[in-house]
Amino acid sequence: MSLEGYRGKALDILSKLNVNIGDIIEISRDSFKIKGILMPSYSRDDSIIVIKMENGYNVGISVDNSKISVLEKRIQKPLNVMPEKEEKSEVKIISTGGTIASKIEYETGAVRPALSTEEIIQFMPEINEIAKISAEILFSILSENMSPDKWIKIAEAIKSAFDKGNLGVVIAHGTDTLAYTAAALSFSLKKLQGPVVLVGSQRSSDRPSSDSPINLYSSVLLAKKAPFGEVVINMHGESSDLYTLAHRGVKVRKMHTSRRDAFQSINDKPLAKVLWLEKEIKILRPDYHTKDEETTVDSKFDNRVFLLKYYPGFDPSFIDYLVDTKKIRGIIIEGTGLGHTSTELLDSFKKAAKDGIFLGMTSQCIFGRVNMNVYTTGRLLQQVGVVPLEDMLPEVALVKLMWVLAHENDIEKIKNLMLTNLVGEINSRHSLDFFPRWYHE
Amino acid sequence: MSLEGYRGKALDILSKLNVNIGDIIEISRDSFKIKGILMPSYSRDDSIIVIKMENGYNVGISVDNSKISVLEKRIQKPLNVMPEKEEKSEVKIISTGGTIASKIEYETGAVRPALSTEEIIQFMPEINEIAKISAEILFSILSENMSPDKWIKIAEAIKSAFDKGNLGVVIAHGTDTLAYTAAALSFSLKKLQGPVVLVGSQRSSDRPSSDSPINLYSSVLLAKKAPFGEVVINMHGESSDLYTLAHRGVKVRKMHTSRRDAFQSINDKPLAKVLWLEKEIKILRPDYHTKDEETTVDSKFDNRVFLLKYYPGFDPSFIDYLVDTKKIRGIIIEGTGLGHTSTELLDSFKKAAKDGIFLGMTSQCIFGRVNMNVYTTGRLLQQVGVVPLEDMLPEVALVKLMWVLAHENDIEKIKNLMLTNLVGEINSRHSLDFFPRWYHE
Repeated sequence: MSLEGYRGKALDILSKLNVNIGDIIEISRDSFKIKGILMPSYSRDDSIIVIKMENGYNVGISVDNSKISVLEKRIQKPLNVMPEKEEKSEVKIISTGGTIASKIEYETGAVRPALSTEEIIQFMPEINEIAKISAEILFSILSENMSPDKWIKIAEAIKSAFDKGNLGVVIAHGTDTLAYTAAALSFSLKKLQGPVVLVGSQRSSDRPSSDSPINLYSSVLLAKKAPFGEVVINMHGESSDLYTLAHRGVKVRKMHTSRRDAFQSINDKPLAKVLWLEKEIKILRPDYHTKDEETTVDSKFDNRVFLLKYYPGFDPSFIDYLVDTKKIRGIIIEGTGLGHTSTELLDSFKKAAKDGIFLGMTSQCIFGRVNMNVYTTGRLLQQVGVVPLEDMLPEVALVKLMWVLAHENDIEKIKNLMLTNLVGEINSRHSLDFFPRWYHE
Repeated sequence: MSLEGYRGKALDILSKLNVNIGDIIEISRDSFKIKGILMPSYSRDDSIIVIKMENGYNVGISVDNSKISVLEKRIQKPLNVMPEKEEKSEVKIISTGGTIASKIEYETGAVRPALSTEEIIQFMPEINEIAKISAEILFSILSENMSPDKWIKIAEAIKSAFDKGNLGVVIAHGTDTLAYTAAALSFSLKKLQGPVVLVGSQRSSDRPSSDSPINLYSSVLLAKKAPFGEVVINMHGESSDLYTLAHRGVKVRKMHTSRRDAFQSINDKPLAKVLWLEKEIKILRPDYHTKDEETTVDSKFDNRVFLLKYYPGFDPSFIDYLVDTKKIRGIIIEGTGLGHTSTELLDSFKKAAKDGIFLGMTSQCIFGRVNMNVYTTGRLLQQVGVVPLEDMLPEVALVKLMWVLAHENDIEKIKNLMLTNLVGEINSRHSLDFFPRWYHE
């Protein structure tokens, strides 16, 4: 009998019914009746059983005063997971950790990455119907601990997966630094045989409102069927569970600490909308990068860089320290408005530029494009060597700079590469509807 | 004759018609006819004349092949601007510089703050119909050069204006650091006899699409008539010119480099909507701070602080430098997700906290609230002394910390004040509609 996570009262009742995780059950009380698949439980309350409903969501219901009946015993067939040796999978799921692969630590109540990819798939058995998958646990870390050296390992694992004949790759990853990793992989994998879909989850798998199953399911669908050879982040598109969005890896940002639709495209449109219930991928922009014949990996990063967010009262001597003591090679400035800082910083920037340090300007507004030709300050900053980086997101400009510095030493070549649109990180055409609509009533 | 800025062809034609700036004229060509007030011109093309239309916008039209007729000669009555000595104004306009008070430098084509408040009012003579105003030029700086010592001077000028009997105060200010100043004034002026309305402009006054006249007009309306005693930023609410929004000074951010509706409330609702054409102020939330009997100013700031935006690869030794060498007193961390950094930073944070340095956590997601109880990393960060700062914006938390550090030395009192909601900077109740809606088609 398989009743993982159940204890006490719920375990008693489920055992007596001879029910297993994966069976279809019905639970009814006075006013309602819910049908769905019995899921593993991580609830601290031992009277709760967890059911996955037809809309993909889990719901936790107390067994107290409830009637449970087994509608369908599902034979415990082995999951459609390929052992590592078999090479005929269509989609490879590479797990790096994060909420999408986590469960509650009972001792502290906190969430910790622990579940294997196989266990994740248990949450969404329907994945077996859309693709033959193989699974690999590359790391098991919370994504706030992700680092440039690990980006390289992920890029290599992706290349290896395509070399083995997979049509697409899914990367399960924490959401905290998901966008940084997406940018790093975008610059590292400029030629791709298929989609690389990064996916995370904002609510852990054991919570009723978890976005894990739907995000994972639609990511496998994308990895198998999307027509592009690009790195995307695929997450809930809005607070409903009707669709997910595939955002270009260099034009996306986590915009909310907890919402399921936290990831949104900035200064760009998403590449595709995934209507997961209909198993349909709707391409939102036709100018995607098509699949290449082969996958090439060129993943190296120099993290002698700094992301400087300007604010009133900023002490210019911090810049001198970065240059003189830390010997950094580049600074991405998150300036104000169209790309400014106080003119008090000019001398330090001038000195840094003379030392051959790259200085790039982005905006803390996030939306829009820097333009350093409108105001006197912008012109003065350019004169001392600060380069306006168009509409690049500060975080993406930073990751790009790490990548560029690992490939070039000549400052003119570095500037040139930073201003060249390598993988869609610079969007020369903005449209009014890139700016979201606030509610004002 | 008053024809400021006109040269060449346009000057010739206007002179022959004996027309003055401020007169109502009509210009017609084959297909269209436009009626409005003749405005000063700063166009580089000497054939362009600028007309302010009834909807408040300026439009530039070439005199070539056009017929111009004077509909109404307006007597050049002196503007309703009080000289400094007269104390019976209702609204005081304090100008600090920025686009709202700027014109094009002909020699470089760049924009520079230069216009006097009187000149600004010329752009919107209707202001005279809603309030008796008096004007003061406090600074003439681009707001990227704003600094904590200048915040204090603005706060004092506001107090002085209320002491002289004004009903409200308008601060004309550049948009780059407008939100930082709004936060600084909010903490400095906890008791206010009336509204303090900060206003800027995203497009300079000489451009047809300038938001200066409408923003200024509706700000004077707010300053005179709004029922609250709070510091707000009042700017275009959406791309149309139908209304402006008054955002609470500690819950607003510049979210776009160039759009007129760049300023938006984050994690909160705006306080009011100003339907300027109808001269109507619609209060959007009833829980505003009402007017106090007197205005008190308590404006001091300690800028031995740092705003640290975390990213993968961040070098923890930078924190040691801030603590050991720069002797800073506090760090606002702009962490990832719910409030995290790599655990590699733990040792440096621990050391900093032991040295009595305040460490506060905000999120680079911008939207939402930090929660450092969900994941192991958050708990570890709290254990070494990092304080989760609820839903405060990183920039607001930084300004608040500067203010708190100038008032307290005891670390427990500092922590306590940082977690106390002083002027609405912490919003304990979020609603789903605070997150804007992206377009996904």
